[in-house]
Amino acid sequence: MSRIAKTPAPPYYAVIFTSERTDGDQRYAEMAEEMVQLAATQPGFLGMESAREGVGITVSYWDSPEAIRQWKRNERHLVAQRQGIEEWYQSYKTRVCKVERDYGFEK
Amino acid sequence: MSRIAKTPAPPYYAVIFTSERTDGDQRYAEMAEEMVQLAATQPGFLGMESAREGVGITVSYWDSPEAIRQWKRNERHLVAQRQGIEEWYQSYKTRVCKVERDYGFEK
Repeated sequence: MSRIAKTPAPPYYAVIFTSERTDGDQRYAEMAEEMVQLAATQPGFLGMESAREGVGITVSYWDSPEAIRQWKRNERHLVAQRQGIEEWYQSYKTRVCKVERDYGFEK
Repeated sequence: MSRIAKTPAPPYYAVIFTSERTDGDQRYAEMAEEMVQLAATQPGFLGMESAREGVGITVSYWDSPEAIRQWKRNERHLVAQRQGIEEWYQSYKTRVCKVERDYGFEK
């Protein structure tokens, strides 16, 4: 299965989360997997793409700004966000975007 | 140095390029590096973040939609795009976005 998210026709919304980890895991992998699973059950979730190679980039796609706000306020996600600042991340940047157009290619 | 792009206050623009490679390199690494260097010299370029782990995600940041259009039409970039379809990518998706807000954290 393709790891490229199957998103609908634009407009829709993207959250680009770029991060640098601290050393050690501190149960990060476990929580990251839990967040991937949990995000996928949220209203308005459209898909997610993720890769880490020095820097980590996770892009999640949503049908509205309200869906993004709700996910940010999710109780379990708030726990993860707090732990992220305290333990897991050296630095991060979150960018909330409106996807205006897209195109692709598949062999 | 941080590998998280230092972008100005929003609004600005992002191009999310998500891809799956074919097998073998076929001089991909060389061209990818050339494109990173070349993009950084283009008018309106603000920064770039990239990681590959199964899927590849490259996000480039720009100050306007016109800067994105110009980069897409860059002659050497057109060569890379054609070769990408012919040789390097199994599939890809390009999403052009307006970054509406951002926030971050640094230890």
